[in-house]
Amino acid sequence: MNTLKERILQDGKNLGNGILKVDGFVNHQVDAVLMDEAGRLFAELFNDVEATKILTAEISGIAPAVMAGKYMRLPVVYARKSKPITMPDQVFLTLAPSHTKGRTVELIVSPEYLTNGERVLIIDDFLASGATILGLVRLTEIAGAKVVGVGALIEKGFEGGRETLEKLGFLVKSLACIASMDGDKIVFSD
Amino acid sequence: MNTLKERILQDGKNLGNGILKVDGFVNHQVDAVLMDEAGRLFAELFNDVEATKILTAEISGIAPAVMAGKYMRLPVVYARKSKPITMPDQVFLTLAPSHTKGRTVELIVSPEYLTNGERVLIIDDFLASGATILGLVRLTEIAGAKVVGVGALIEKGFEGGRETLEKLGFLVKSLACIASMDGDKIVFSD
Repeated sequence: MNTLKERILQDGKNLGNGILKVDGFVNHQVDAVLMDEAGRLFAELFNDVEATKILTAEISGIAPAVMAGKYMRLPVVYARKSKPITMPDQVFLTLAPSHTKGRTVELIVSPEYLTNGERVLIIDDFLASGATILGLVRLTEIAGAKVVGVGALIEKGFEGGRETLEKLGFLVKSLACIASMDGDKIVFSD
Repeated sequence: MNTLKERILQDGKNLGNGILKVDGFVNHQVDAVLMDEAGRLFAELFNDVEATKILTAEISGIAPAVMAGKYMRLPVVYARKSKPITMPDQVFLTLAPSHTKGRTVELIVSPEYLTNGERVLIIDDFLASGATILGLVRLTEIAGAKVVGVGALIEKGFEGGRETLEKLGFLVKSLACIASMDGDKIVFSD
């Protein structure tokens, strides 16, 4: 997705240690028009997987996932990182290390909204080591549902997440894949 | 917005203590098509306010705010409840009591994305006592920006938030205003 790649080159900041700051259009300030375009593209890429639900993680996955949900006309569930009082006592919960938070976070989904037999498309903002997405995969499987695809806005191709997910047999698509970010330079893989 | 009201009647749950559970289409599972319709309606309602930015609070405000941003072609900033490592050390921060969390939460915005002279439209999922929205108002004013409107998906008309905000001179619009929710019954005000 060229508009996304251009935006990363223009406004992304390499903070070192493999951290790419995209707070100006994804993570804190959101470019809603860009997210809409990303959603449309996810809908195209996953047109054939017959998903019945989209699953993402709060917070930054919500905007691209909801835009994909709009085009695919699917409900979007976001795994919560803390349990609100409106959620039942019995939940699906897994732990995932968060690179940008520097600690392990909980990912929680209510059994009300992820059920046996569903076909789940996972959408998130980043695919790096795949730790968060593997957490979403575990939640899906605990629920008795099946992962039918994994989509990410931005992939850090040098962190191994794609290899891990593809070894598990998942279809993985990203809209911008970064091959390297040494020094100030961001290089895409295609 | 009739589709929203119908959905509240169909899937909303009155948990008592003034807490309305809408986890099936707003707060945990999101109906993306409904949010898109809400976004289009916000764009109509605030067509004349000449906003330059939309401000919301993570987490549940993101979906309706991003949809409004798409129709209004405006960037959407969501106030964070914890400071990620990608955010600068100097931030705008205020505290707001959270009814559903049962504690005070921080609302944090980076000065990179909320600046002097901007015209800010605040969009959130709920307007109840107005505590969160007043927090967003304070952040806007600390930044030297101006609030030009306040939009909420669901208003709890019996909790006084609208009166507080209108006394401060703000234009307030909600897409579904609940007059009372005694027992199991949810009654809209119009």
